[in-house]
Amino acid sequence: MTDAIAAPSSAVRPAGVPSDLESLSFETLTPVSFLDRAAAAHGERVAVVDGDLRLTYAELHDRCRRLAGGLAPLAGGRPVAVLVPNTHVGLEAAFGVPWAGVPLVAVNTRLSAGEVAYILEHSNSAVLVHDPVFDELVADVLKRMDSAGTRSAGAPPGRPTVIRVGEDYEALIAGAEPLAITPDDERSLLSINYTSGTTGKPKGVMYHHRGAYLQALSMVGHTGLTPSSVHLWTLPMFHCNGWCFPWAVTAAAATHVCLPKVEPSRIWELVREQGVTHLNGAPTVLSMIAYAPEAGPVETTVKVATGGAPPSPAILRRMAELGFDVTHLYGLTETFGPAMICDWQPEWNELDGETQARMKARQGVGNMIACAVRVITDDGADAPADGETTGQIALRGNNVMLGYLDDEQATRDAAPDGWFRTGDIGVMHPDGYVELRDRSKDVIISGGENIASVEVEQAIADHPSVLEAAVIAVPDDRWGEVPAAYVTLRDGESATESEIIEHVRTRLARFKAPKTVTFTELPKTSTGKIQKFVLRDEAWSGQERRIR
Amino acid sequence: MTDAIAAPSSAVRPAGVPSDLESLSFETLTPVSFLDRAAAAHGERVAVVDGDLRLTYAELHDRCRRLAGGLAPLAGGRPVAVLVPNTHVGLEAAFGVPWAGVPLVAVNTRLSAGEVAYILEHSNSAVLVHDPVFDELVADVLKRMDSAGTRSAGAPPGRPTVIRVGEDYEALIAGAEPLAITPDDERSLLSINYTSGTTGKPKGVMYHHRGAYLQALSMVGHTGLTPSSVHLWTLPMFHCNGWCFPWAVTAAAATHVCLPKVEPSRIWELVREQGVTHLNGAPTVLSMIAYAPEAGPVETTVKVATGGAPPSPAILRRMAELGFDVTHLYGLTETFGPAMICDWQPEWNELDGETQARMKARQGVGNMIACAVRVITDDGADAPADGETTGQIALRGNNVMLGYLDDEQATRDAAPDGWFRTGDIGVMHPDGYVELRDRSKDVIISGGENIASVEVEQAIADHPSVLEAAVIAVPDDRWGEVPAAYVTLRDGESATESEIIEHVRTRLARFKAPKTVTFTELPKTSTGKIQKFVLRDEAWSGQERRIR
Repeated sequence: MTDAIAAPSSAVRPAGVPSDLESLSFETLTPVSFLDRAAAAHGERVAVVDGDLRLTYAELHDRCRRLAGGLAPLAGGRPVAVLVPNTHVGLEAAFGVPWAGVPLVAVNTRLSAGEVAYILEHSNSAVLVHDPVFDELVADVLKRMDSAGTRSAGAPPGRPTVIRVGEDYEALIAGAEPLAITPDDERSLLSINYTSGTTGKPKGVMYHHRGAYLQALSMVGHTGLTPSSVHLWTLPMFHCNGWCFPWAVTAAAATHVCLPKVEPSRIWELVREQGVTHLNGAPTVLSMIAYAPEAGPVETTVKVATGGAPPSPAILRRMAELGFDVTHLYGLTETFGPAMICDWQPEWNELDGETQARMKARQGVGNMIACAVRVITDDGADAPADGETTGQIALRGNNVMLGYLDDEQATRDAAPDGWFRTGDIGVMHPDGYVELRDRSKDVIISGGENIASVEVEQAIADHPSVLEAAVIAVPDDRWGEVPAAYVTLRDGESATESEIIEHVRTRLARFKAPKTVTFTELPKTSTGKIQKFVLRDEAWSGQERRIR
Repeated sequence: MTDAIAAPSSAVRPAGVPSDLESLSFETLTPVSFLDRAAAAHGERVAVVDGDLRLTYAELHDRCRRLAGGLAPLAGGRPVAVLVPNTHVGLEAAFGVPWAGVPLVAVNTRLSAGEVAYILEHSNSAVLVHDPVFDELVADVLKRMDSAGTRSAGAPPGRPTVIRVGEDYEALIAGAEPLAITPDDERSLLSINYTSGTTGKPKGVMYHHRGAYLQALSMVGHTGLTPSSVHLWTLPMFHCNGWCFPWAVTAAAATHVCLPKVEPSRIWELVREQGVTHLNGAPTVLSMIAYAPEAGPVETTVKVATGGAPPSPAILRRMAELGFDVTHLYGLTETFGPAMICDWQPEWNELDGETQARMKARQGVGNMIACAVRVITDDGADAPADGETTGQIALRGNNVMLGYLDDEQATRDAAPDGWFRTGDIGVMHPDGYVELRDRSKDVIISGGENIASVEVEQAIADHPSVLEAAVIAVPDDRWGEVPAAYVTLRDGESATESEIIEHVRTRLARFKAPKTVTFTELPKTSTGKIQKFVLRDEAWSGQERRIR
């Protein structure tokens, strides 16, 4: 669609090095290489625990290479999409799909059939690997794809090749020769992760091999993963490729424990049976764990990385009592997951509990491999580090996306000067730590998942009785934030709250439906623009920050 | 001297990315950037403890940038050499010299004046920063450089600009503007580390920014450095740039505790006073610590990385009793220090103490960012993983040197097919772990330092009474290995053991002098070649391995 990215300029090279010996000191950075190392160095270690299934690193390595061999001819250079819960298949795809030489599209399993169909078409995916639990969803997706109306312009005709996990998937692996294509260029496309932004349609965030490799190393460093670690998959693998943890856990040659469904009783069972040492998740997930009937102190500290929303003092206190050491991270799909970390300062050990919790709720500083974080005011200057002046948080560097797939304008809008604008408003504290205060974009983050206000508004406006609608985030004790709708009906029409909510659920993922619907006149400017801030001021009155 | 290294080929770039937005997702990998992050994120943390001196990360950052500003005009694009013990200056040089846009030459402080002069001339260093403890050595070095005879062909005339640590050095920093040159190309020259190989003269091993960056991240991951860590500098900073720990400790924003001299009583004082959590060193250093009169159990586990020789079961047992957790690493100057790690497998916790010690004494597997290690037999094949077939250990990848400075032939000889031959002979065990058995090159590793047999032989042969000499490594309880000389005198001449040892000490670093001299007829082949293996067979009889 546009120019290729120029290779970084090569300047002075040292003398004395024959050009044919370049490979002596150079290897392409790709996160799939961590599995080569794990298989060579820890081949007999259990790599994957998934129900009764156990895979050693040698077995996982072999299966991923065969998966690559099976997928490559089916994909024909086009992406492979996967629609699976947190099972061994999600992990195998994180290695096997790149080794097939094509990008991975890990689809959010909570989306509606229409949304999944859009993603498959937009990404031009040639293959869809799916779990049987999504049989119904996939049938609906394929039906939609067959109807010409939903196909986007330029998309090739035909549905993707569908591979069902179970017999089909195992036959593909069993019948294939091992394959491992490594990219010539470490900045080439590794995966496409769809995110809801401010516009209605999900955007395809392009990850590169180099970024995922470095982000994985950074995650190892910050979370202290070792070969003795046991990582429980409470974070969806489709979420920013699981914050790059399929690769990070493998880099450390630790054990992956799969969790297809986030059930507190099952989590506690696995924590105790498997000796879990690490897990990640949104504060919502932490609450489910901490307040489950099965909750009780753990023998060895469990390191928890949380993000998507700042953890509350109450949950931090409760987790600490149970023996969980919580680190707060911050990032977006566009930044390979956690680009920032609230790095704990040993000096803070001396502070009282309340102050500690306030420190931990800050979004923090760039992670080990990130560029310095900026807070940019409306006039383009860096906000002073006074903890008061607000500006938009901006990021760039090796753990930032290449751009949005087939959407140069959106990429340019998001990074007008080469700095990615997160859409989040924050302050820079005197100690260099950033704290979020508000969002500039109309995004609602509910239980760690993004929801674009506009897509919910459009779905509501589709209802025949609705004249216009505004959707904002409102605070919620369980999910952090939830969408709340304000609706004006057409003259003479009527509708109920549950009718509107049901209507949205037929079009979008269930979690995107508003939790409340208020029928009212919408506040507007003199020129007729809806003044959402009036609604937000009311909904968030008495709150310290405008995010949860 | 030869062709520049070609940039890695750029192949398929994803669509949708404007070329002017490349900087969004790309930053040059350079280890000095870790100090930017540490200063931004942990500016008030104590970065350096050096006697009574304390520097925060903000202060260290400022000093290094000013050092760069002061050095740049003096260096004029040529390297800056430093001759300092493990003080704050060694750390400042690791950041300030690269920020001046020139390579760092950290000189082994145990070398003789002749050796230092050779390194300064060969590296073409424009500046020499030295500690006052080396005043006498530096005077001798400069005198030698002034005498035309020692200057190598093509070297520019004149001594380097000398900056003495203390007033001169502080004035340079105080009077300079901050400067931070970052390389256009991450594979450009970062530092030159001189090593004794099989030939008489030290070779200049060229490190690149990318390799040091990745190696530092790998060291953080494997040793578990965090902002709460306190790293004691028992390993010389001149040794492979301190295994990249000036950058690794800074990446984690941990505290550096300097140790100008390896004195056990001082080590124990610092371990207790400063709450040391991490230290590195050869097994010799571990012995000094473990058997010091001050030795006693530590409150919090100290993580120790050891290398240069396999740690003995006795020292491992003793260190464990004291609360030190020892990890065995393996590498060479050519591989940025530890390219391999004896990654501890949790399953080994079940083994008895003796077997555990034997497991830990193996050199292990490639580290997190290394390419897979090979053991290559004489006929060029990979040795089977049977724990018996010996071959030469070979390495390549991002943590291997660019080559030897101004010595294409030596580079080519060391890596005939793009795989660096370590000169060490080992076996591949069935579990993928490598164990050293012998050395193919005439290198003696004494207390972690390389000694080339040939340089000692040449120094001995310089003695007017000597006809010929052979030097081999013999086992030593304190130093692991020490050089032993076998000497044939000229007819009618006489010399004593101490006379020969003193003679070598005037020419080479003291640790390179033979510990014993045996006057004897040398064993030879029918064609007159000295059969060192006969001498080695005798000296190592009854030993399991031919390395210590």
